[in-house]
Amino acid sequence: MFKQKKIGIIGMGVMGRNLALNIESKGYCVTIYNRSKDKTDAVVTNNPKKNIIPCYSIEEFALSLNKPRFIFLMITSGTHIDNVIKILSPYMNPGDILIDGGNSFYKDTMRRNLELSKKGINFIGTGISGGEEGALKGPSIMPGGNIDAYKMVESVFKKIAARVNDETCVAYIGPNGSGHYVKMIHNGIEYGDMQIIAEIYFFIKNIFHLTHEALGEIFDKWNQGELNSYLIEITSRIFVRKDAKHGYILDSILDVARNKGTGAWASQDAIDLGIPLSMITESVFARYMSVLKQQRLKASKILLGPNRENCFESKCLYVEKARKALYLSKIILYAQGFYQLKIASDKYHWDLNYKQIAQIFRAGCIIRSKFLQKIIDIYSQTPDITNLLLSPYCVNIANDYQQMLREVVVCGIKYGIPMPTLSAAISYYDSYRSNVLPANLIQAQRDCFGAHTYTCFDKKGTFHTDWLK
Amino acid sequence: MFKQKKIGIIGMGVMGRNLALNIESKGYCVTIYNRSKDKTDAVVTNNPKKNIIPCYSIEEFALSLNKPRFIFLMITSGTHIDNVIKILSPYMNPGDILIDGGNSFYKDTMRRNLELSKKGINFIGTGISGGEEGALKGPSIMPGGNIDAYKMVESVFKKIAARVNDETCVAYIGPNGSGHYVKMIHNGIEYGDMQIIAEIYFFIKNIFHLTHEALGEIFDKWNQGELNSYLIEITSRIFVRKDAKHGYILDSILDVARNKGTGAWASQDAIDLGIPLSMITESVFARYMSVLKQQRLKASKILLGPNRENCFESKCLYVEKARKALYLSKIILYAQGFYQLKIASDKYHWDLNYKQIAQIFRAGCIIRSKFLQKIIDIYSQTPDITNLLLSPYCVNIANDYQQMLREVVVCGIKYGIPMPTLSAAISYYDSYRSNVLPANLIQAQRDCFGAHTYTCFDKKGTFHTDWLK
Repeated sequence: MFKQKKIGIIGMGVMGRNLALNIESKGYCVTIYNRSKDKTDAVVTNNPKKNIIPCYSIEEFALSLNKPRFIFLMITSGTHIDNVIKILSPYMNPGDILIDGGNSFYKDTMRRNLELSKKGINFIGTGISGGEEGALKGPSIMPGGNIDAYKMVESVFKKIAARVNDETCVAYIGPNGSGHYVKMIHNGIEYGDMQIIAEIYFFIKNIFHLTHEALGEIFDKWNQGELNSYLIEITSRIFVRKDAKHGYILDSILDVARNKGTGAWASQDAIDLGIPLSMITESVFARYMSVLKQQRLKASKILLGPNRENCFESKCLYVEKARKALYLSKIILYAQGFYQLKIASDKYHWDLNYKQIAQIFRAGCIIRSKFLQKIIDIYSQTPDITNLLLSPYCVNIANDYQQMLREVVVCGIKYGIPMPTLSAAISYYDSYRSNVLPANLIQAQRDCFGAHTYTCFDKKGTFHTDWLK
Repeated sequence: MFKQKKIGIIGMGVMGRNLALNIESKGYCVTIYNRSKDKTDAVVTNNPKKNIIPCYSIEEFALSLNKPRFIFLMITSGTHIDNVIKILSPYMNPGDILIDGGNSFYKDTMRRNLELSKKGINFIGTGISGGEEGALKGPSIMPGGNIDAYKMVESVFKKIAARVNDETCVAYIGPNGSGHYVKMIHNGIEYGDMQIIAEIYFFIKNIFHLTHEALGEIFDKWNQGELNSYLIEITSRIFVRKDAKHGYILDSILDVARNKGTGAWASQDAIDLGIPLSMITESVFARYMSVLKQQRLKASKILLGPNRENCFESKCLYVEKARKALYLSKIILYAQGFYQLKIASDKYHWDLNYKQIAQIFRAGCIIRSKFLQKIIDIYSQTPDITNLLLSPYCVNIANDYQQMLREVVVCGIKYGIPMPTLSAAISYYDSYRSNVLPANLIQAQRDCFGAHTYTCFDKKGTFHTDWLK
């Protein structure tokens, strides 16, 4: 045991606990600390033969680690992180490495990075995706910070990360907040992916009155094809999951979806950056709308829907249309998300490697899917592509599937089945492929009431018209 | 002239200059200051007979005013305001009143309010809408701050504000940042209103190949009815405005729309508050999308649109449908915006008076319209209504017009004409009137991969299922 590298973990929630077990299983001794003693004790009691050392004070914890210290913070983001850093940093030495493995906001990570670097402490803001199972068996890991510090902990990350064949799902993302930024976009895409799946499920279920078994079969079949992904897989299994007493569990779940804020951050940052991140934003709004259950109940009794008309042929044909609509929406969702990464990378000089980011999403994380290989291929061939939608692969799919996405949204609107995010997908698609948009009118209006001036197609400079003269 | 009340204005941009002239015309002496001397001189030179005193230093400016000083800041929002306050406040006395008439972010206003109140200086964050013409002839004014301080300047505000019959378009909004908050939502609604008008214009223009004259006539006719508003009016006039040499000016304006951030703030704040503010957000995204002109040009050459099919009857019938679609969208836009006011009012304990807010929007400001009277009526009858869409008036219109909004969006999607904000309107409508949404699936997924637990329709408590067992 002597000289064995010890790794410290603060925070014994589900993610911290499972990460501790994951790290320990790779041959490390893990020192753990939690604010409340009970959780620390529970980990030790429930894992008696593991090489895990419980600590009951920050001082004891810090002294237990060999230098340079490797410490993971696995605690709730926000002021908790600052509080722990404040208590912990007096016990840390220059050269120690502090890894924030939670969902911190990237601007907080930038600030903490700067503060700690003044003390010589390396701070690695690290996105970790994969939920509790990923943390235990191998998550997707997105570390951002000083590259030399990263190199020191790289071997630990590589051992605990998810794998695809010989490759591990971890790569150095870039300086300071970039790791948490990529995680934020990852989570935004996760929100969008879940929402478009929910909209498509609701749509086909309602128009064809499908049973849970039929839905399970459809999604299972979809999972064999290009839609293959973790989320489609778990969805197919959720449909058919029964409770001995109450029947299908899904039927009894209240339609009120909560969120932890990372999708919302992605939207707010898109608004800061001037990026039309409509699908992730609509998926955030869809969760907010779900919370307004009481209002919706009231509204459902007084606000009318459409006169339903039969707008489709056979069920089989239509389910295939829905599949194609879902796949194209997914492509547009990723195109929006990766475009935001590009703009953020330019703004903060992160020099992000989009191919590598897609690679580390392939396993461990919630949004792992077959489509990520297509993204890897696209960035291999055209590393500087502006928007994924402009790649030959996406263009082909889009031109093949756009009619189906269109028809599904049209049918949803005709039927009064809400599809905010799929609608946003086709709106984005049609806006994006419009060489001319009605923004000229908006510029004219702004010039008319606020003398904001406008630019022209055919001449240089800015102009003002006295429109109401 | 002795004892005549002097009012100070800092900032001689278009808004500050016009506000100075407006105030002077009401019998006050106005003292002006601008960072660059030229603008100050220009105001005096161009208005030789006016009771306007130029000042060339902050000290001279402050000393010129009788106490308690009434000072308007009419400068660009952001750090400029803080800088001027820093320079100005040493010359101010307890009891003086500083009015920020710019588009400041409400949280900045809250902070400045707190800082200045420590010095006994009253700070009134005041939304002023109406563009340059409004500032000159009578804007819509939304002051927030200490009510006793407001009472002292109320007579000035009442004299310079826009009027509807005997009523002036100014009312005390509430404490600290509430005035700028209401202005922020006002501007967000303005973004949305402009965007839905642009989408409808683009749609009917494209499907019927309408001439500018025909568009002008249609909008002029619409302006006679329930859509009557300043924006519809100026739009009808913008269509037909010609340049002697180049023909219709609108045709030569580049379709790239800029923004100054207040719409974006409304969206970001909605995301903070958990509110589905989809239409304003899509209208912000539509402007961002318009900026991506080069990408759109490229995309337009490779991304296909739909196979167009004729989906409408006669032009006249369809234009009437478009009108109804636009009106219902507008109602949904206001329902979203006023709902956000309500949630913000609850959060910050502002006790906003929604009826009064609608009243002060009726003249002077960009979003003035006939519909505001309906909002006033609704809040007169039901001051505590949660969402305007639940009022009998809106329910009637919605149930009458929802089919038309649906058909217009369906036709837009079928034709490949982008309608992000109108689509968001029908999605919101259908979501809002859905007593059941597919959020149960999202909760199941979250519980499946993150053990986030879920709640049920039929039993109390939170539950967790081992979904993949």
